Amino acid sequence: MEIEIATIGGYEEVGRNMTAVRVDDDIVVFDMGLNLSQVLIHDDVRTEQMHSLDLIDMGAIPDDRVMSELEGDVKAIVPTHGHLDHIGAIGKLAHRYDAPVVGSPFTIELVRQEIDDESKFDVDNDLVKMEAGETMEIGDEVDMEFVHVTHSIVGAVSPVLHTPEGAIVYGLDKRIDHNPVLEDPFDMERFEELGDEGVLCYIEDCTNAGRKGRTPSESLAREHLRDTLTSFEDYTGGIVATTFSSHVERVYSLVEFAKEIGRKPILLGRSMEKYTNTARDLGYPIPDDLEIYGHRRSRERAFKRIMNEGKGNFLPVVTGHQGEPRAMLTRMARDETPFQFDEGDKVVFSARVIPEPTNEGQRYAAEKLLKMQGARIYDEVHVSGHLREEGHYQMLEAVRPDNIIPAHQSLSGVAPYVDLAESQGYTTGEDLHISRNGNVVQLTE
Amino acid sequence: MEIEIATIGGYEEVGRNMTAVRVDDDIVVFDMGLNLSQVLIHDDVRTEQMHSLDLIDMGAIPDDRVMSELEGDVKAIVPTHGHLDHIGAIGKLAHRYDAPVVGSPFTIELVRQEIDDESKFDVDNDLVKMEAGETMEIGDEVDMEFVHVTHSIVGAVSPVLHTPEGAIVYGLDKRIDHNPVLEDPFDMERFEELGDEGVLCYIEDCTNAGRKGRTPSESLAREHLRDTLTSFEDYTGGIVATTFSSHVERVYSLVEFAKEIGRKPILLGRSMEKYTNTARDLGYPIPDDLEIYGHRRSRERAFKRIMNEGKGNFLPVVTGHQGEPRAMLTRMARDETPFQFDEGDKVVFSARVIPEPTNEGQRYAAEKLLKMQGARIYDEVHVSGHLREEGHYQMLEAVRPDNIIPAHQSLSGVAPYVDLAESQGYTTGEDLHISRNGNVVQLTE
Amino acid sequence: MEIEIATIGGYEEVGRNMTAVRVDDDIVVFDMGLNLSQVLIHDDVRTEQMHSLDLIDMGAIPDDRVMSELEGDVKAIVPTHGHLDHIGAIGKLAHRYDAPVVGSPFTIELVRQEIDDESKFDVDNDLVKMEAGETMEIGDEVDMEFVHVTHSIVGAVSPVLHTPEGAIVYGLDKRIDHNPVLEDPFDMERFEELGDEGVLCYIEDCTNAGRKGRTPSESLAREHLRDTLTSFEDYTGGIVATTFSSHVERVYSLVEFAKEIGRKPILLGRSMEKYTNTARDLGYPIPDDLEIYGHRRSRERAFKRIMNEGKGNFLPVVTGHQGEPRAMLTRMARDETPFQFDEGDKVVFSARVIPEPTNEGQRYAAEKLLKMQGARIYDEVHVSGHLREEGHYQMLEAVRPDNIIPAHQSLSGVAPYVDLAESQGYTTGEDLHISRNGNVVQLTE
Amino acid sequence: MEIEIATIGGYEEVGRNMTAVRVDDDIVVFDMGLNLSQVLIHDDVRTEQMHSLDLIDMGAIPDDRVMSELEGDVKAIVPTHGHLDHIGAIGKLAHRYDAPVVGSPFTIELVRQEIDDESKFDVDNDLVKMEAGETMEIGDEVDMEFVHVTHSIVGAVSPVLHTPEGAIVYGLDKRIDHNPVLEDPFDMERFEELGDEGVLCYIEDCTNAGRKGRTPSESLAREHLRDTLTSFEDYTGGIVATTFSSHVERVYSLVEFAKEIGRKPILLGRSMEKYTNTARDLGYPIPDDLEIYGHRRSRERAFKRIMNEGKGNFLPVVTGHQGEPRAMLTRMARDETPFQFDEGDKVVFSARVIPEPTNEGQRYAAEKLLKMQGARIYDEVHVSGHLREEGHYQMLEAVRPDNIIPAHQSLSGVAPYVDLAESQGYTTGEDLHISRNGNVVQLTE
Repeated sequence: MEIEIATIGGYEEVGRNMTAVRVDDDIVVFDMGLNLSQVLIHDDVRTEQMHSLDLIDMGAIPDDRVMSELEGDVKAIVPTHGHLDHIGAIGKLAHRYDAPVVGSPFTIELVRQEIDDESKFDVDNDLVKMEAGETMEIGDEVDMEFVHVTHSIVGAVSPVLHTPEGAIVYGLDKRIDHNPVLEDPFDMERFEELGDEGVLCYIEDCTNAGRKGRTPSESLAREHLRDTLTSFEDYTGGIVATTFSSHVERVYSLVEFAKEIGRKPILLGRSMEKYTNTARDLGYPIPDDLEIYGHRRSRERAFKRIMNEGKGNFLPVVTGHQGEPRAMLTRMARDETPFQFDEGDKVVFSARVIPEPTNEGQRYAAEKLLKMQGARIYDEVHVSGHLREEGHYQMLEAVRPDNIIPAHQSLSGVAPYVDLAESQGYTTGEDLHISRNGNVVQLTE
Repeated sequence: MEIEIATIGGYEEVGRNMTAVRVDDDIVVFDMGLNLSQVLIHDDVRTEQMHSLDLIDMGAIPDDRVMSELEGDVKAIVPTHGHLDHIGAIGKLAHRYDAPVVGSPFTIELVRQEIDDESKFDVDNDLVKMEAGETMEIGDEVDMEFVHVTHSIVGAVSPVLHTPEGAIVYGLDKRIDHNPVLEDPFDMERFEELGDEGVLCYIEDCTNAGRKGRTPSESLAREHLRDTLTSFEDYTGGIVATTFSSHVERVYSLVEFAKEIGRKPILLGRSMEKYTNTARDLGYPIPDDLEIYGHRRSRERAFKRIMNEGKGNFLPVVTGHQGEPRAMLTRMARDETPFQFDEGDKVVFSARVIPEPTNEGQRYAAEKLLKMQGARIYDEVHVSGHLREEGHYQMLEAVRPDNIIPAHQSLSGVAPYVDLAESQGYTTGEDLHISRNGNVVQLTE
Repeated sequence: MEIEIATIGGYEEVGRNMTAVRVDDDIVVFDMGLNLSQVLIHDDVRTEQMHSLDLIDMGAIPDDRVMSELEGDVKAIVPTHGHLDHIGAIGKLAHRYDAPVVGSPFTIELVRQEIDDESKFDVDNDLVKMEAGETMEIGDEVDMEFVHVTHSIVGAVSPVLHTPEGAIVYGLDKRIDHNPVLEDPFDMERFEELGDEGVLCYIEDCTNAGRKGRTPSESLAREHLRDTLTSFEDYTGGIVATTFSSHVERVYSLVEFAKEIGRKPILLGRSMEKYTNTARDLGYPIPDDLEIYGHRRSRERAFKRIMNEGKGNFLPVVTGHQGEPRAMLTRMARDETPFQFDEGDKVVFSARVIPEPTNEGQRYAAEKLLKMQGARIYDEVHVSGHLREEGHYQMLEAVRPDNIIPAHQSLSGVAPYVDLAESQGYTTGEDLHISRNGNVVQLTE
Repeated sequence: MEIEIATIGGYEEVGRNMTAVRVDDDIVVFDMGLNLSQVLIHDDVRTEQMHSLDLIDMGAIPDDRVMSELEGDVKAIVPTHGHLDHIGAIGKLAHRYDAPVVGSPFTIELVRQEIDDESKFDVDNDLVKMEAGETMEIGDEVDMEFVHVTHSIVGAVSPVLHTPEGAIVYGLDKRIDHNPVLEDPFDMERFEELGDEGVLCYIEDCTNAGRKGRTPSESLAREHLRDTLTSFEDYTGGIVATTFSSHVERVYSLVEFAKEIGRKPILLGRSMEKYTNTARDLGYPIPDDLEIYGHRRSRERAFKRIMNEGKGNFLPVVTGHQGEPRAMLTRMARDETPFQFDEGDKVVFSARVIPEPTNEGQRYAAEKLLKMQGARIYDEVHVSGHLREEGHYQMLEAVRPDNIIPAHQSLSGVAPYVDLAESQGYTTGEDLHISRNGNVVQLTE
C-alpha cells in the first residue's frame, strides 16, 4: 500500500495551509488557506477578482500544481476550521477538484460564505457537514474520523485517516483546553486511543512551538476579561471592546460580561456580523436579541443611538484589534464615526498584536490616536489558540506517531518543534520529516 | 503648620525604600528597606554582621542622614508590608530612633524575625500591631490610619496621616484586586472617601507604571495555576513548584491545587518555612497538617521520603524561582539533593524573572540544568503585585491629591508615571514632585 | 541681573525644540522646530496651510504662549542647524517676533526655503548669517558666540550667550567628531575654554544619553560605506543607496565612492535636490557636474536613462531610508518608477530606522517589497549624530557648568542623562533642572 | 566513486564542530571542537582530566562514534583555524585515529599547546603545517588544498578536497574581508575559480546567517578602535582594553594605538600570552619588546609597576571581555589586583557580548562593578568574524555548489541560511541538506 503526503502550503510560512494525503488511489486534501499578509503588502489588491495563478505567484494561496504528481483521485477537501489561513483559498482552488468539501457544520457555513464572495470562479463542490466524533468512508480501505479539538474558533477538528497501515492524524491548529467556554473539552482521550491503536503519521501545528510552557485554557482569557470589565463597573462613560470576530467564545464572553456590568452589548463590523450570526444560526448560545450591525448605515445608526442614549448604557464590540486601517476601531480612533470618546473612556483589546512590523505599526498608530482622544487602553486580554512547547510534548506522549511532519511555520518556526521531537527520540530525515512547500513525503511503498 | 516629606530611599532605584513625613514636630517614617541586588553583586557579603554606614555606602540601605535636617521627633516607624525592600533595613536603622515600629500583624511578625536575625545591632524598638481600618494618634494634631490594600504579600496597608491640612497617603506597593484569594478586596471605597475629604499629598509606587493596562487580580494567577496543575492530573511522576515564599496567597493556592490533583504538598526551604509558619500562626488558613521543612536535615529527610514513597504522591513547593544559586530548586537542578528528576517531570515557576541580567543569567542556568535532567518547564504562572498604568489612572481619579510624589523607581521608571500625572493636569515642579534620595519636599509652611 | 530660561518645546518629546533665554530685557530664542510624527499620524495633513494654534494643539510645533511671561524683547531667533525639528516651526512662529533669524550660512539658507514654502503666514524677519567662531552683540551686556560643533548636517553650531554672570551654552544636537568628512573637527578646545571662563548654564541634547559608550566619528560611517560599496566593485547590475538627504557629508561620501567603483552618482528626490544644491551653492565640495533631479518629470527621465544606458553605470542616491510611503525608494519598491530591479541588485541604507513602530512598519514593508523584486539589502551603514553617554561625560568634564538643563527628549529619555549628571555631583532640583515644556527656570535674580 | 559526508558535531549547536568526508576509502576529518558552554554550566569541571565519553555525554565534544559507520581510513584531521570550537576536542579524540593533524602554521602551534595541556590522553598524532595556497595529496584520487580566508583569528583556511567528482569545500568560519589588518585579503578569486571548476559540495558556517547585510572588514573595527582610543588622547588617567586574546589582528591594533596615544601596551592574562607569543614566534609583526605577562606573579608585578609609574603611561590589554568570573578584567573589577581604578578611567571592550543569558549576566555584573569604581565603559568596539546574509549570498554566487550542507548552528540558526539558499534555487532534501549531528549525507554512489 502506497501512502504519501504532499506538503503543499504552510510549510515555509504561517498561512496558506494545504496538505494532501494519498493512500493508494485515494487522496484527501486538508485545508486550502490564504496568506493574507502577502496580499496586504500590496496596495489595493482585491482577491475576490484575482486569478489563482496570480495569487500563487504572490505567495498568497498554496501552489497546488504538485497535485499532478500524485496518482489518485481527490475524494475530499477537508478544512479543519474556519480561519482564513485554512479556508481562504477554497474559492480559488476547490473547483479544480471533483470532490466535496467536508467540515464541521460551523466550518462548512463559513466555507459557503467564502464561496459566495468569490467572483472569479464558479465553485460548485458539494459541501458536506460532519460532526466531531463521526466517521466517513473515503475509499475502500480508508475512513476519515473527526476528532474534537479546541482552538480560537468553534467547530475545530483534527481529521484522522484510518488506513490499514495506521492512522494519519492531521493536527493543525489547536490547544489542549480542558475547560473551554462553549465547547466540549479537548478530546485527549481519543488521541491517546489513537496512540494505542497506532499512528503512522502525525502532522503538527508549530505556530507557538517556540514558546515555553503550556497555552492556558480559554477560561483564563474569560477570567481575565471578567476581571477587566468588572473593574469598570462604576464607570459611567464609554467602554469599547475589540477581539477576533471569528472567536465566538470570546465574543460570547464579552456579551455576557457587558450584561454583568449593566451594559447592552452591540456588535459592529461586517465580520462581527458574519461569524456571530453563523454561530447563532448553528445553535451556539448567542442571545437572540443581541444587536449586530454589519452594514455601514446600520452601524452609523447604532453609533448615533449609543451617543444619544448615553455611552454608559452600551458596550460596543468592534473589529480592529490589529489596528487594521479600515476596521471599525481604527475609524473610531480617526473620528470617522459618530462615536465620540471622552477622557477616561476604556478600550479593551481582547487580542494580541500579531508580532510583525506592519501590524505593530498599525496597532501603534491606532492606540496613539485613541489616546489622543482621551481613551485608556487595556491590552492583551487574551490567550492564544495554539499549543506551546509543553502542549506539543503532551501530544507526542499521547499520539506516539511513527512519523511526524511539522507544519504551519517557516523553518525557524519549525526548529523548536524539531528540537523537542528529537529530544523525544525522533530522528530528522528518518521519522521526523522537515518538509517544504511542494514536497512529497513517502511513508510506505 | 509645617509639613515636609523627606524622600530618603527608593527614589533612585527599586529597593531600600524609606520616606519620612514631618508635620510640625511629629515625624513618621515609612519603610526601611534593603536593596538586595547591591549586596549580591559582591561575593560573600553577610549583611547580618555589617555596619549601617558600610551598607549605606554600598547603596544597600537608605542613607538616613538626611533625617538630621528634619526638626522634630520620630513618633513611629511604619513598614507597609513585609517585603525586604520595605523592612530589610529595620535591623540596621531602627535602633537610632526612639520610636515604635507600627505595622499590620503579619508585617510586625516579619519585622520581629528580621530583628532577631540581626547580629550587629541591638534593636529594641517597641513592635506595635495595628489592623487595616484602625487609627492611631501620632501627635496632637495627627492621626495615622491603615487602609487595606492588596499586594503580593498578605497584610499590606497604605498608611494615611490625617493632618489639619489634609491627608498624606503613603501608597507604595499595591494592586487594585477586587477578588483576592485570602484577603478582603482592595478598599477602593476608602480611597475615594479620602479623595472627597481632601488629600494633601499622595506618594505612589511606580514599579510597573510603564506597563500598559491594568494588573489582574490574584484570582487570575490562581486560575492559571489551577489550569496548569490540573492539566497534570494524569501524570504520575514528579511535579515541583516554586514561587515567592512570602506570597502566602500563592502558596495557599499551590497547597490547595496539590490536593485537588491528589498530591501531598510539602514546602521546602528556610524562607518557605518562615513566611508560611508566620501566616499560619496569625490565623491565615494554612492547613495545620501542612508539612514544611526549612532546615537542611529535615529537607533531606523529606526528599528521601518523597523518593521512597513515590514522587507521584507529592508536590514539593520550593524556593528558587529566580534561579538563586543557593535556593532549593537550583540545588535540585544541580543534583545536590536526594530528589531525582525523571524525563517528563514538571517544574512550575509561579513567578516572573525579575528583568535584570544577573537574574536572567541565573534563571537560564537553572532551567538549562533542569532540562538536562529531563524536566519540563512551566514558566510565568504569575501576576504582578504592582499597579500598572491604568491602575495608577484609577487611583488618581479616586484620590485626587493636591500633591503627588512618585516613588519606588529610578527616574526612567518614574517617567511614565509623570507622563500620566501630567496628562491628568498635574505640573512637574508645582504639584508633581520628582524627587531624589535625600531630598526634602516642602508641602506647607 | 535676572536670567531665566523658558523651556518651551522639546522637553517632553523628541522634536519641536524651542528654548528662550532672558537676560534682563534681552531675550534670545534658540530653535523653532517641528515634531513631524505628530503630523504624520493624521492622514492628509498639509502643514504649509495650517494655522499655528492648530499645530500647537496637535503637539506639532512649540507652544510659545509662555513667551508672554518673559518680560523683555526678543533680539534674535537662533536655529542651531537646519534639521526640521530645529527650524520647521519658523514659518509658523517667527513672524510673531520682531527679531532677525541668526544662523550659520547653511542653516539660514534652509530657513529661507522653509519660509518660502510657508503659505499661511508672511514671514519677513531678517535672515542673518554668522559663522562659527564669530560673535554678535545681543544687548548692552550680552554677546552671542557660535561654537563649531559636528552633527549629521553641516553648519551646526552651539550658540553661547556671554553674560556678566557667566556663559549660557545651548548645546543641542552634536557629537564629538575629531575627524569629520567635510567640516572642521569638533571645537572641544573652545568648550574647555568656556569651562575655564565659567559657564552659568548648559542646555544639553539627551537624544542618545541612554546609549553606552561614545558616538563614533563620521569617518567611521564613511569607512563602513567605502567597505560596503567597494565590496560591490565587480557587480555589474544595479546598486541603489539611500540616506538622510540633509546629511551632506554622507551624500558626499556616497558620491565619491560611486566614482571609486566606476559608477556615476545621480541624486533623486526633492529633498536630495534641496539640501545638496544648498550645500553646493555655499561652497561645500559637491561636484559641479553631479546630477540631481528633484522634480517628477526629471526623475522619470533619469530613471529611464539609467535603464537604457545600463544600471551598472550608475549609483542612484535616493530618498526613502525610513520607508516613507511617498519617498523615491518606496516608489521604486512598489514598481512605480521606470527603475527595474533585477535579482541580486543591491540597496544600501546608510541610515538607521528611527525606533518607533510606525517607521519600523513602513521600513519593513519597503524592504519586503524590495526583496520580492530580488534586491539584496545592506542596512545600518551609519553612525548617529548625537552624543552618547561617554560624550556627555566628556562634555561635562569640559564645560563644568553651574547649572544643567537636559533637553531634546521625553522624561524617560532624559533620565539616563540625569543619572550621569548626578553621578558627577549635580543635584536635581538645585543645579540640575528637569524641566518640562512651558516651564521657566530662574537662574539668577 | 562513493562520496559521503558525516556531519558529526556542530550541526545542532554552536560549538564542538566536526565533519568527516569519505571519498571511497579515504577519509578526512575537519575540525574537532569543544562546546565550552556545556562545560561551564556545571561548577568545577576540569576538562583536561575528563574522559572523552563523559564529555560526549555532556554535549561538550563531538560524538564521533558515527565514524565507525564510514568504511575507510582517516588520512588527515584538519582544523580550519585555532578557535576552541574547532580544535578543543583534538586532545580528547585525535589519538583514536592514526592520522596526522594538518593545519596552517598558526593553527598547528595552537593544536600543539592544546595537546600539551591534555592530561588524560596521550596524543601523538603527527602535526603537519601547510600554508594557504598549498596542496597535499590525500589518497590516490584526492588532493587537499588550503584556500586563504579571513576570520577573527589569523591563519584561518577553508580546506578543499579535490575529487574526480568535483571539489568539496569545507567553508566554516570566515568573513569576506578585502582589507584585513595583518593578513592577505580574502581569496575570493580562488573561490570563483573553484565555482568555475565545479564544486560538488559546500559546507557553510551559518553563525550569523540570520543577520542582515554584510560583515564589515576588520579595518572597520580598527578604525573604530582608533577613533575611540585617540579620543582619549588628552586623558592622563587609566585606560584598560579587553578583547579576544586569540584575535591577533585586534590585539595588534590595540598595541599600535596604545603607542599612538603615547602609552606603553602591556598584555595581561594567560591566554593573552599564549596567543600573542605564538603569533610572534610565527613571524606576525608583534613587537619584540611588547610586554606580556601570563603568570600570576608577573601580572601582579606588572600591575604594581603600572600603579607606581603612573597609569597614564600604560594601556593594559587584558582578558575578560565576556565578564568571565576568573578573567583579569573581572578580577580588576572586584578589586582583586593591585590595579586601582579612579573616577573617569576608561575601559574599552573590543568585543561583543555573546548573546546568551549566562554571558549577559556575567558581563553585566563585571560592568556594574567597574562602574562602582568610577570606570567609564566603551562597549562593542568590534566587528564579527562570521559572514552575514549578504556574505552568504556572495559566496553562493561565487561557488555555485551542486550540494550545500549548512553547519555551525542549531536548526533555528540554520533556518535563515536555508531560506537564502532556497531563494537561490536550491531544494531542501535534494541539493540542500539540513543535517543533524551523527548523520551521513550520501553525495555520490
